[in-house]
Parts: sequence; C-alpha cells; structure tokens
Amino acid sequence: MISVIRAGALGLFLFSLSAASAQTADTASGRPYERVANRIISSGLMSGQAFPILRELTSTVGARLSGSPEAEHAVAWAQQTMQKLGFQNVHLEKVAVPHWVRSSVEEASIILPGPNTEVPLRICALGGSIATPRDGITAEVVEVKSFDELKALGDRARGKIVFFNRPLDPSKVSTFEAYGGAVNQRGQGAVESARPGGVAALVRSMTTRLDNVPHTGAMGYNDSVPKVPAAAVSTLGADLLDSLLASRKGLRLKMKLGCQTLPDAESADVIGELRGSEHPEEVIVIGGHLDSWDKGSGAHDDGAGCSHSLEALRLLKDLGLTPKRTIRVVLFMNEENGLRGAKAYAAKDRPGEKHIAAIETDAGGFSPRGFGVQADSQVVERIARWAYLLRPIEADRIQKGGGGADISELGKKGVPTLGLRVDGQRYFDYHHSDSDTIDKVNERELELGAIALAILSFVLAQEGV
Amino acid sequence: MISVIRAGALGLFLFSLSAASAQTADTASGRPYERVANRIISSGLMSGQAFPILRELTSTVGARLSGSPEAEHAVAWAQQTMQKLGFQNVHLEKVAVPHWVRSSVEEASIILPGPNTEVPLRICALGGSIATPRDGITAEVVEVKSFDELKALGDRARGKIVFFNRPLDPSKVSTFEAYGGAVNQRGQGAVESARPGGVAALVRSMTTRLDNVPHTGAMGYNDSVPKVPAAAVSTLGADLLDSLLASRKGLRLKMKLGCQTLPDAESADVIGELRGSEHPEEVIVIGGHLDSWDKGSGAHDDGAGCSHSLEALRLLKDLGLTPKRTIRVVLFMNEENGLRGAKAYAAKDRPGEKHIAAIETDAGGFSPRGFGVQADSQVVERIARWAYLLRPIEADRIQKGGGGADISELGKKGVPTLGLRVDGQRYFDYHHSDSDTIDKVNERELELGAIALAILSFVLAQEGV
Repeated sequence: MISVIRAGALGLFLFSLSAASAQTADTASGRPYERVANRIISSGLMSGQAFPILRELTSTVGARLSGSPEAEHAVAWAQQTMQKLGFQNVHLEKVAVPHWVRSSVEEASIILPGPNTEVPLRICALGGSIATPRDGITAEVVEVKSFDELKALGDRARGKIVFFNRPLDPSKVSTFEAYGGAVNQRGQGAVESARPGGVAALVRSMTTRLDNVPHTGAMGYNDSVPKVPAAAVSTLGADLLDSLLASRKGLRLKMKLGCQTLPDAESADVIGELRGSEHPEEVIVIGGHLDSWDKGSGAHDDGAGCSHSLEALRLLKDLGLTPKRTIRVVLFMNEENGLRGAKAYAAKDRPGEKHIAAIETDAGGFSPRGFGVQADSQVVERIARWAYLLRPIEADRIQKGGGGADISELGKKGVPTLGLRVDGQRYFDYHHSDSDTIDKVNERELELGAIALAILSFVLAQEGV
Repeated sequence: MISVIRAGALGLFLFSLSAASAQTADTASGRPYERVANRIISSGLMSGQAFPILRELTSTVGARLSGSPEAEHAVAWAQQTMQKLGFQNVHLEKVAVPHWVRSSVEEASIILPGPNTEVPLRICALGGSIATPRDGITAEVVEVKSFDELKALGDRARGKIVFFNRPLDPSKVSTFEAYGGAVNQRGQGAVESARPGGVAALVRSMTTRLDNVPHTGAMGYNDSVPKVPAAAVSTLGADLLDSLLASRKGLRLKMKLGCQTLPDAESADVIGELRGSEHPEEVIVIGGHLDSWDKGSGAHDDGAGCSHSLEALRLLKDLGLTPKRTIRVVLFMNEENGLRGAKAYAAKDRPGEKHIAAIETDAGGFSPRGFGVQADSQVVERIARWAYLLRPIEADRIQKGGGGADISELGKKGVPTLGLRVDGQRYFDYHHSDSDTIDKVNERELELGAIALAILSFVLAQEGV
C-alpha cells in the first residue's frame, strides 16, 4: 500500500517536473524559463506565422485608415484571425473614430515667371487637412526651419504659403529622436502658418531618405486661428523648392487639395486572449494598432505590430504554454489620428480586472533589440532581470523609457508600459508613405519581434511585474 | 621672466589639453575616448561617405570576380579612391589569382516522361566548376540531404545527377551558423557525387529565402576522383524538383554549363594607411575583400566591407585624428575562390613591422552589433573594455569568437583577429546572387558599420591590444 502510494506520488511528481520543464520556471538550471524561451525561439524560426499573417493583412485589406471601409474590413479580418488561431474571449469593443478622406485631387507645382515654367512637386495632404478652394491656392512662399523663424517674419508671412523645411537631424543615432525633433512642423504647421495670416502649409516629409515620395501623417487645427490646408512634399521636392527659392525671384506655388472630414464613423478595437490559469483577473496587454494611414499598405506601421501580437499569442498557444495570468492581444483602432481606440480601451470599466503591464509594438517589423519600460526604476529592474532570455536573439536591451501611444492611457493610470524596441534605421524610409509595403519586411526579422514579445509577455504572466 | 615662462608653460599645457580632448584619452570624464567616439558618430551620420563610396564601386565597376577585367578595374578604382581620400603609402601588392569564367550557357530542365514536359529550372554554375559536354548531361536524379545519405545509396548513385537538398536550418538564430551547416554540399558536392560514379552535382542554393534566384559560390575538386560539373538551383526550383521526384516516375534532369578555368591572372591587394605618430611600425589592419562573385554587383559581399574600411579611415583622417599606431586598410583580392590575396599579404616579409590586430568586415552593410574577437580571453577582455564607446550605436557586443577569412592567415601567426558583427538576418537573402545590389543597402546602416570600425580601430591604435 505504501509502495503504491509512493509510486503514485512519484508519478505525479514526475508529471509535474515534466510540465515544469516544458512550461514554467525550470529553476533547476539557475536560469529559469531558459528552456521555454529557447523553445519559443526555435518554434518561431522554424514554423512562424508572423509573415503569413502580415501578408494576408496587407494583401487582402491593404491600407486601412480609421473610418474607411478598409478599416472595417481590417476589424473583421482581425476578429476572424483571432478566432481561427483559437484565442479565447475574442470580441470587439466599439468606438467612434474620425473619418477623414483623401481625394484624388492633390497636386502642387512651382510657378516660375515666364512661359512654360511650372515644375510639378510630389505632395500629399496631411491627415485632417481641409481642402483648398476648388481652383487651388496660388501664392508666394516663405521658407522657414522653425516656428521661431516664422514668428520673426511677422507680417511678411501674410498671404503666403509657409514652407516648413527643417529635416530630420541625421546626426541622431535614433531615427525616432530625429523624427521627434522635426514632427511639430507637420502637427502644428497649419496653425502656426495661419497665425500671421499664411494661407497654407507645405511641410518637408518626415523621412530620413532623400527621394520623391511624400509622407503623410497627423496634423491638427486650433479654434483660435483660421484653418488652412496642409500638405507634405517629398524630400527631393523640398530640396528643389529650397534651391529655387534661393536662386529665382518671383516664384509662386500652386497647391490643390480635395480632402475632407466626414462625420465620425463607428469602428472597434479587436481583442482576444489566453486566459490565465491562476490569476485570470490579472492582465498583460500586448498590442499594436490596426488602423494605418491610407498610403502603401501599412506593412511596418503597424501591420508588423498587429502581426507581432497575434503571432506571439499563437506561439504560446500552439506550444501548449498556458500562462498563469491572462495575456490579451488588443489591436487598437485609430492610433494614427485620434487614439480613440486607446482611450476607449483604457476608459472602459472592467470590474475585478487589473492590468499589470502593457506592451506595445509600433516601431516596425525590424530585428528586435529589446524593450523600453515606462515605470519606476524598481519595476524596470524587475523586468530587466529576464533579459538573459532574450539574449540568444540579441533583443536583451531592456531599459528605462519607452512605452507606446496606444498604451499611454493605461500608463496614466499607473500601469507599467513597455515598447518593443527594434532596429530603427529603416523605419522612416517607409513610414506613412506609399513605400510602406510588405516587400520592405524581412520574414525572419519580423518573426524575431514576435518571439521577443512572446517570451517577455509569458515570463511576466508567470512571475508578475 | 618667470611670469613669461609660466605663461608659456601654461599655454603649452592648455594646448595639450585641447588636443587631448579632441583626439585622445579624455581621461577626465572617467570614460576615455568617449568624446572622440561621439564625434566620429555624429560626423559619420551627418556627412558620411560610406554609401557614396559603395554606390561608385557598384555602379562604375559592378561585379568583380578574381581574374576578370572588372576585378582589375576594381583594383584601379580602389587605388585611386585611396589616393583621392588622402591615405598614405597607397600601393598595390601583386598576387596571381584563379581565373574562372562563367558562360552564358547555363541551363537545366526537368524532363518528365511524355511530350512537352520539360520544366526549366533557374540554375547557375558553382564557381570553379568544369563545363558539361557541349550537349549537356541528361540523367536520372538521386536526391540526398547529406553525404551520409549519399554514401548509403552506394551504387544507386552511379550515372546519376546528385541533387543535394539540405536547406539552411531556419531554427538557427545566426544565419551564418545555418549557412555553415549547409555549405559543405556546395563546397564538396561535386567530389562526393563523383565518388560513387555520379555524373554531376546540383545543389540547393545557400539562402534563407524561398525564391527563384540561384546563388553561386566556391566549390572544389579532388585529384582522387573524376571532376563532374556542379551548379546551384534556386530554392523554389529545388522544392519543385523535390516534389516531382516524390510524385513522378521516370524523371530525368538535363543540365548544360559552359564555364571554364583559364590560367591564373595577375591581380593585387590594394593598401593605404594612416601612419602612426608614435609607433608607426605597429599596425592595425582593417579590411574587406575587393573581389566578388560575378552575380549582382557584390554590394553586401563585400562592397560593404570595402566601403566600411575606406570610410573608417576617411572619418579618422577628416576629423584630424592621427593614430599613435598605423591603421592600414587592406582590400584583399580573391577571398571568394582562393584567398590568394590574404595568403600573399600574410606571407610577405615586412621588416620591422608588427601587426597588433586585424579587423575584417565581410558580413554585409547591415546595422552593426559588435565585434567577434579571435584571441585569448585576456585580449578579448582588454578589447571588450572599450564596448561603452560603441554603446550609443548599440554595436557594443564584443565577444570571443570571430575574425574573418582574409585575416585568418594573420591569425595563424598569432595576430588577434576581429570581425565586425552586423545584423545577419538579410545577408543570405542576397549573398552570391543577382540580388546583391545597392538597393538592398540602407545608407545609415552601412555608415554605422564604418563608424563602429573607425571607433574601435582608433582606440586600439591609441591604446594597443
């Protein structure tokens, strides 16, 4: 009898050990979770789905600006994909989103004095811009590199098109930092142009590349000044305009935009999860944004983040790794021009639930480098102790500072927020432009991002934050 | 008088300090060389020449296989470029190199029984292969994944074309490791095919991609067995052949190659340097290989390494940074199919000179990650203490193991050898194929590699190894 009990106990013990080595801490090695992390890595690299998922999104849906039919198609696609992958509690959380639409009418040309001296420029409306009058706007141009420079011009900007031409600072190693140092021209250029009586804003594209592709992006208005139309011009076009302004007298610019803002549309965040086995009420959000700009097909921004998130949860599920806490994929709607999905998600009352961390991936499908953590230093240190699990894929740089736009609303409520950090040198080559297509995504680099996300979210689900 | 002397002494002291902060240890910060490293970073990113150099090489010279007129053009270009950049002691060191030439005749097709059932395959001769008879070889096929499998077939391989179809192992994080695990099929496939009486070797392309582009590369013969022709087939072609072999009886393969080996040609390593101000006889070599395969334009392999090396020395020179020890760029000839330039460089008697380190860059123009060091652990540690200088560009992974083919001959003589490590996920997508062209190179990623090389070679020149 005793021997039977012993055998039974031993059997149970062996079973637990085997489950432990497959799934959990694996503390015997002194490097807990190392085996499970390595299983995630090799399974992802051998038979990962990140690229097929992204290919499907970009080919069957394509670009998907908030409010558009394509965005609704993306919502349906994401919900079906989560169901097909076998996620739990798949559902939509509805949200009203802005509905701005581009028109096929968007053109600009430099007009030099004399006959036959129109030089066309590649432009695109900035997202949220009003249209020009039907015949366009033709005016002289003032070129500035900053709002201070514009202010110093005073009345000389009146009646002019204001051309903002401060490039992304190439000396910055971080292209995101370079972008951050230039993007106020795009966001506030229209308002600042209108203050002294400017009639339109033309903004150098927010890209590290010199080419002939305009890059769109969000801009805003302010009730205190008139609304004027705003467009981005390709960097080559900006350089041309700059050089002609310096060398030719009497230059004027003609700009025509047909875009408009329609009433808000109904859309949704798309949500699915693996329920936690021990603390299902404690939630780790992983996600990106499902909407994109209406250029290219939103492959890196942020198709990659959607694919990372879906694939991370799929990897865990298909490897039979049940997390102790709930890991929830949230594909946020309307990051690009409103953050409505992010705000709605964070504002929703979720009785009994507690978010213990949120991880966003919205920096493209490039090789992962690590995670940025927006939290107090103790939390950063507690998360950073897992860096060795990410070392084999060289994604082990876990450092303070990061997060993401969609999860910042959760951050304001005290939830530690993390952002997947990837190699950022190519991101702004494609960002918000016709160049952001799947051929710019490397299958293995994309998968490695999903793997990094799967490993970190799983260990946080097991061990807490 | 005393006051004059004091003023003079102080003046000298101030001058030294300013030179020190500009150029050398900058020990006051507790992080020596940090300022100079940051100057190199921002200067490279602001006005780097790595990409223009590579564009010139790939557009004016293009592919440059050892022995070809294009390789001689590359030698002249490299010498002129070093002279234009103001390097010192620019010279050629002559070396005889193999001269293998591809022919326009290279074709293969699967022949299925029945009329009109030829299915063409995209192939290319492996470098060094003999031609087939003028009418080609038509034979049955045996498919194997390893030499052991081939051995087990015994006499069943006689008279057949041997198809080596072991892919690069996708589960390896390091694509170089995956390549290393598959490349014996290319290198020794012809010899192993001939042993049991096979008539030709067809090898799955050594790439991580599934596409229709064949990848060439070196192969060898052995005097103990007959020479048989050898070609690479695209990965898509390999998959097709594999599936037809499994499903269709009586399949034969037709292969025709017109390549040949001509007598050795004269060529050269191209060398230029910045002479050391204190220990000019102590030399740090930095370099890549000037030859390429005759496919694409050798942009990543190894135009990038040539560009890295030239740009690293240019950066130091143009920043007025005179090294204490000599930093020498060596652009080696014939890495791809003979290492003749590497061997000649290492064998040459250089009285009074001592090589203290050699750094190779031959892994493509991708974002740098760090350096691999082939030396004893103490040397690795001494080099690794400079990692913080490379931290701002996240190229600070300095670890044991590395080097490079061209500098391995110096390594055999006891010189510590280092290899620039870059993000390797995309390298084998392009390697040795028509895809290896400049549009696959990102300007900033390439420049960052040159910056990493400039920083490390400079600090080693100042501080020794």
